[in-house]
Amino acid sequence: MWCQSCKEEYEEEDAGTCKECYEEASETEEELKREIDDLRSRLLFLRLPSPTLDAASAPHTDLLLHAIPACSSSSSGGGDAADATRAPDTPAVPAHRVILASRSPVFRAMLENEMEESRSGIIKIYDVSYDVLRAFVHYMYTAEVLLDEQLASDLLVLAEKYEVKHLKAYCEKFITSKVNNDNAIAHYAFAHRHGAKQLLEASLSELMNNMSTLADREEYKELVEKDPRLVVEIYEAYLNRQVNTAAGKDTDCGCRK
Amino acid sequence: MWCQSCKEEYEEEDAGTCKECYEEASETEEELKREIDDLRSRLLFLRLPSPTLDAASAPHTDLLLHAIPACSSSSSGGGDAADATRAPDTPAVPAHRVILASRSPVFRAMLENEMEESRSGIIKIYDVSYDVLRAFVHYMYTAEVLLDEQLASDLLVLAEKYEVKHLKAYCEKFITSKVNNDNAIAHYAFAHRHGAKQLLEASLSELMNNMSTLADREEYKELVEKDPRLVVEIYEAYLNRQVNTAAGKDTDCGCRK
Repeated sequence: MWCQSCKEEYEEEDAGTCKECYEEASETEEELKREIDDLRSRLLFLRLPSPTLDAASAPHTDLLLHAIPACSSSSSGGGDAADATRAPDTPAVPAHRVILASRSPVFRAMLENEMEESRSGIIKIYDVSYDVLRAFVHYMYTAEVLLDEQLASDLLVLAEKYEVKHLKAYCEKFITSKVNNDNAIAHYAFAHRHGAKQLLEASLSELMNNMSTLADREEYKELVEKDPRLVVEIYEAYLNRQVNTAAGKDTDCGCRK
Repeated sequence: MWCQSCKEEYEEEDAGTCKECYEEASETEEELKREIDDLRSRLLFLRLPSPTLDAASAPHTDLLLHAIPACSSSSSGGGDAADATRAPDTPAVPAHRVILASRSPVFRAMLENEMEESRSGIIKIYDVSYDVLRAFVHYMYTAEVLLDEQLASDLLVLAEKYEVKHLKAYCEKFITSKVNNDNAIAHYAFAHRHGAKQLLEASLSELMNNMSTLADREEYKELVEKDPRLVVEIYEAYLNRQVNTAAGKDTDCGCRK
């Protein structure tokens, strides 16, 4: 027999499909590719020129966003009250109310109610660097960003704060794809802090696959110090899995009886 | 042999693919489907709430568009100078400068230069009904419209005028799919007026397939009256095709000698 796809001869036991199914599958593939072309062209149409690239490409802006990085001497790393009074010292990122309000319910509430930000057209974004803020605004216009692990983490935090679900899911998917034994504890704690379920499951699974070395790790000891409840959850999940696996084996034995 | 797709037995001569190609094709299909899901979710993110739906969903608008329908007593059907002085008598459609300017180079030029429209925030759109203008603005925000043939024609004209290429191509594709012997003359003349190449080719091809009855049609006689050069082009294309077909046959004969 000759394969209609690769044109090579094959043995009977290597048969894949009949001619009818082969032709149907080819049609399906063509249809899917046409749909992809159509979706891509609609995406290109809906994509907006990002005001973060240069000022000339951003006429009609009616907002200025200022990045206020977390004070490096702050022990918590969170935005404390002192930050709020500091004057912004990085350039502002211009933007349009209609775009931010349509992407984020938090910005929408801020801009549609009579809040200070709405009156002044100036929004301070706390605990974030200028570069991260630019990437955040760029994404609001284009749905595009070139991620590395650090940027994905920073953007996930910002996306969670401003409820930009699409960006949060995008960053979470990226970080999840990078989980390994070395970073699983850090990602596990991060996922817990920011309600990232997919990342939590992936890092917990990675941890459970390497339980024998878990307690030796420096990050483990830090986590026991800082948030022992999270460590308890790892042990609980591990025990739970062991019980389920044992129950599964028992059921198997029952079947064979 | 058993088909791995439909699970039914088939004869050797009905073999489609080998197992390897079958598995590869299945993977490709899965990948394409994942890409479609990703593109759809990005589209949903980039889609903006249309200000044509209700006023509450359109805060921060900074433009008003007025539809000025072509005067029904005008014999040309085109926008004559008298229209320009008429006060708009339909409700205005609100919109945002940033959106219109990013979708249309004509609006961009109008709004970024010191033109009357930019100063007043009021744009009159001539020779168009209120409903067509609403559909046009809705498309600018969502890349979505439910077309019928009339709306597709009206939007194509508007998209051409304001250089919204994506919408023009979308309408042209829709109209092209509706070409038949009854409407081919009308679509042929329309395609000529508005530089719609795909539609022109489809309607010309339809006309050439029915040349024996062409001259009997009422629309044909009207077109001879109004724009005889277009009729000449139909005959030229027909003759050209006949010559090419004959040349093709000659070449075939040569091969067989």
